[in-house]
Parts: sequence; C-alpha cells; structure tokens
Amino acid sequence: MKTPAYILADWGTTSFRLWTVDRDGAVLAEARSPDGMASLSPADYPSALSAAAAAAGADSRTPVLICGMAGAAQGWREAPYLDAGGPLRDIPAAAVAAPMPGWDVRILPGVALRDAARPNVMRGEETLLLGAVLAHGASGAVCLPGTHSKWVQVADGRIASFRTAMTGEVFGLLVRQSTLKHFMGEAQTDSAAEPAFAAAVVESLAAPEALLNALFSLRAGPLLFPGARPAAVQARLSGLLIGAELAANRPTGPVTLVASGGLQSTYAAAFQIAGIAHTTLDSDACARSGLLHAARLIWPDGRSA
Amino acid sequence: MKTPAYILADWGTTSFRLWTVDRDGAVLAEARSPDGMASLSPADYPSALSAAAAAAGADSRTPVLICGMAGAAQGWREAPYLDAGGPLRDIPAAAVAAPMPGWDVRILPGVALRDAARPNVMRGEETLLLGAVLAHGASGAVCLPGTHSKWVQVADGRIASFRTAMTGEVFGLLVRQSTLKHFMGEAQTDSAAEPAFAAAVVESLAAPEALLNALFSLRAGPLLFPGARPAAVQARLSGLLIGAELAANRPTGPVTLVASGGLQSTYAAAFQIAGIAHTTLDSDACARSGLLHAARLIWPDGRSA
Repeated sequence: MKTPAYILADWGTTSFRLWTVDRDGAVLAEARSPDGMASLSPADYPSALSAAAAAAGADSRTPVLICGMAGAAQGWREAPYLDAGGPLRDIPAAAVAAPMPGWDVRILPGVALRDAARPNVMRGEETLLLGAVLAHGASGAVCLPGTHSKWVQVADGRIASFRTAMTGEVFGLLVRQSTLKHFMGEAQTDSAAEPAFAAAVVESLAAPEALLNALFSLRAGPLLFPGARPAAVQARLSGLLIGAELAANRPTGPVTLVASGGLQSTYAAAFQIAGIAHTTLDSDACARSGLLHAARLIWPDGRSA
Repeated sequence: MKTPAYILADWGTTSFRLWTVDRDGAVLAEARSPDGMASLSPADYPSALSAAAAAAGADSRTPVLICGMAGAAQGWREAPYLDAGGPLRDIPAAAVAAPMPGWDVRILPGVALRDAARPNVMRGEETLLLGAVLAHGASGAVCLPGTHSKWVQVADGRIASFRTAMTGEVFGLLVRQSTLKHFMGEAQTDSAAEPAFAAAVVESLAAPEALLNALFSLRAGPLLFPGARPAAVQARLSGLLIGAELAANRPTGPVTLVASGGLQSTYAAAFQIAGIAHTTLDSDACARSGLLHAARLIWPDGRSA
C-alpha cells in the first residue's frame, strides 16, 4: 500500500469522514465515524481522530487537515470565521492548529457575512467551494443543498455573497417531530412520489409566500382523501420546501449544483422543473479536492518522512 | 349554588376545559384537565369527563356538549366533518352521541373543504366561529391564530372559505427542537423583544417568500453578534412567522381577531404593524358562547330534572 501524504477530514455535526490520499490526491482509504461535534467534548477529538486514521492506514507522521464543525466555537478548537470577499485560495493560510501532541492537525476556518442586516455563516461549505472553484472551475452561482442550503455567488475566485435556506432542517423537523409525521414515510419506490414532488415544486414556485399554508395541506389532504400514500406526502413536503427555496434564491444565470446521492437527484429534478440551467459536481469529490488543495498549500510536500 | 343547565367542554389535543353554566349561560364553575386526545384511548374519556364534571359540581343529570379533538377519528367518538358552506347554525344538529351510559353526551363535528386542490379541515374552531358569528355578530374575515391558524371568510352566517397556516406548530418546533433553540429563550420582560418582533414582521411582510432564508438569520445573527438576547431572538422568530402568515392570508377588509392572552396581544401588534384594521373577540368567551348556543339548540330546556 502506498504511503499516505495527507489525512483529510470533513468533520460534521453528527458524523465525520476521513480519507488518506497520496501525493497525487488519489484516495488510499476512507473511514467514517458517528462521532460528530454534537457528541464530542474537546478532549474526545484526538482519540476519535487517531482511531479513524488508524482504520485508514495512517498515523501521526501524516499531517491532518480538517474542515467543518470541528472548528466551531463548540467544537474541538475554534477556527474563527474569515470575512467573505477575500480570495478562496487564502483560506488555507488561516487554518488553526488543533491540540494533539505528536500530530500536526489543522482546522480550516468558516466564512461569514458580518452584516447586521443579513448576517450569514458557513462552515465546511467554504472547503467544498474551494474544490468546486479551484479544482473544478466553477464560477457564478453555486448551490450546496442540505440541512442549511447555501446559495453562493462566486466571482474572481472569491465569495461575493451568499445566502442560507433552512430547507433540510425544516424538512427533518416536519417529517420526524410534527403532527404531519403520521401521514409520511419513505418507501423504496412509489410511483406517486415523483409526480407529487413535481406538482409541489410548481405550486411553491408560484406561491412561495404561502408556504405555511401549503404545509397544512399535508395534514388536511390525507385526512379528507385517505388514499394518500405516505411516500407521496413526504415527496410533496420535499417539493414544497425546495420550491420555496428556489423561488427565494434562484439566480438569473446558470447554477453549479454541488451535491451527492439522493440530494443531488432531488435538486436536479427541481432545477429542471424550475427551468434553472445547471451543471452538477459531486459534493464528496469537491470536499476531497478542496481539502487536498488546501493541504498542498499548507504542507507542499505532504508527509515528510 | 345554582343548578347547572349544561356542561360545556372544549376538548383539545393536549388538554381540555369544561364549564358548567346555568340556563342564562352564566358560568357556575370551570375545570381544566391535562387529559387531551393525545393521551387518551376511547375507553378513558368517560372517567376523565365525569371527574372534571364532578370538580365543576355537576353529574350525569346534566347534558354535556363537547367540541374539538374528542370528535376526531383518533378521539373518543368520531364526529365526521361537515362540508363548509352550510349555515353555522346547522352544525349542532350534526352532533354525535358519545358512548357513556347514564349520561347524555354529544360531540360537535368539525368542518372541511373537500377540494383536492386546496383541502382543509377545522375541528373546534367551527364552535368558536359559532360563538363569534351568532353570539357576537362577527362577519367577513375572521382570524383564529394558534398551532394551526385559521383564516375564515364568513358570509350570511356561513363559512364561505377558509385557510390554515401552520404558524404555531412551526414556531414550537423551531423553538424547542431545532438548531436555533440554543439562541432562544423567553424572558419575563426584555426591552429588545418588542422592536425585534416589529422589525421581523415588517421584514417578512416585505419578503414572505424568503422565510426559509430569514430563519437562518436567527442562527447566523447570534453567532456573529453575540450580544443578541434570547428573548429578542425568539421574538424575531415569532415576527418572521406571523409576518409570513399575514402576507399570505391578509384579506382586503377588516378582520375579527379571535384570540386570548398572549396570542391576542401578539397578533394585535402584528395587525397594527401590517395596517390591518381589526376588532378583537376573546376566544375563551367565543368557545363558551358557541357551545352554549349549540347546547340550547340541542336541549332547549337544559337539564330536565
């Protein structure tokens, strides 16, 4: 097995992923852990990291670069937000060293809009953008959907502005915690789900201001028309929320969609319904290439021994 | 103590209230119970009801009229929805008898819009409307704010149409279950709360389609400007949601606001900010007068012995 040059990690709120890569950026191994920021105190991070690194065939001789919530104030070691507007390529220089004796671990900062009238923050997405922009050539409008969907305007290798929609979090709350939960449920396949999603996207694009009303139809509909299938109700919820997100954030030009898996296909379908021209980049690939790009700027030679 | 002529009950999802009244409608006693629909099986209702009736000085000789979730399919005994459009005064005739040997107990039905394109239901609010319209002379647009806020158009003593906004439920989910919860908290008094509410109502009225974006500012703001006070953040959330509700549902003419307590003052403040002319009716008084009006139609003489 080749010697890893870098350990790269995307450390989120509820889990983290780690890759070992060689000097050319080829992935040698991958490890996943359920130890996200929400379940760790600062003292817990070193053992979680060394275990994952060992599982991926690396040890303390390999430098580690981390993006995401490990750098939040309530994470491992705070990596304070950089102001938006500066060059994306300057982000790696602001990485903060994490306390782990014998290891060289750095955490990338997030990016903030410090504007009292439209405050905004991202943490982790700046690294995906680094990959999307510097490794894959994205520019203009970039959409990174998720728990907190980001809509970023990139110009000249900088984040000119960005907005955040709480789409994914609101979806999760309504599916799992609300009075609507009894009417929903994902099925492996259901022929009613796709048209229900499409109709809901159209409905919300036409009347995004009525979202709070439209949500109640997810309760009233199944009560009055008991044939409603749970997968279709859930797809309708997804369509209503994503339609409202698109209505509020759609740019005038084409969009680069940075997403993976089900989220990628769901948003791509919504973009098509909304007539939003887009190209797609895989978010996992962008995370790795952003981390790799940053790691090479910090440690040009990778593992030294 | 006077002999009660009727027992009137508003039976909700998480609690119920019961009043004994004399032939003139004067309240003799009131009882409250935490035994709402959500915590009862059908067999549990008789003992919950007889205990509350006893606490209010009544027994099986007094007829009982109930509105609300006790009549839902998952309640005590289903009182199927009436279609909207008929005279409100015809609702009492559709009351359903509940199984409680030795007692005369009836449950009022809810009202539905059986329209696949805009399905809607109410259960409990139809009785408040009965009181507001038949006892207090309300007509035109009526707003009943709450977990599921109702906006009803009343004409000629009938429900011409209605809409429902999930405002209160979404508020509760975001305050208690979301990633925003760490930034919120109600204080007894906080001078920052009222202006934060007002600014948020204005913001949402101007851009109701951007609600999912605005919600994230409740996270980004406190992260970037740590002086934000929890009561002000929570007031801002309330203002954003109510502003969006008003933007989607505001009628052209004046509105009758049917609410009590904090909800009444909060919505009245939002109406004033939005320039919505309104008169206010107390929702508890409307519930009692609606139940009383219905009870007199069902049992003109009240308790017979």
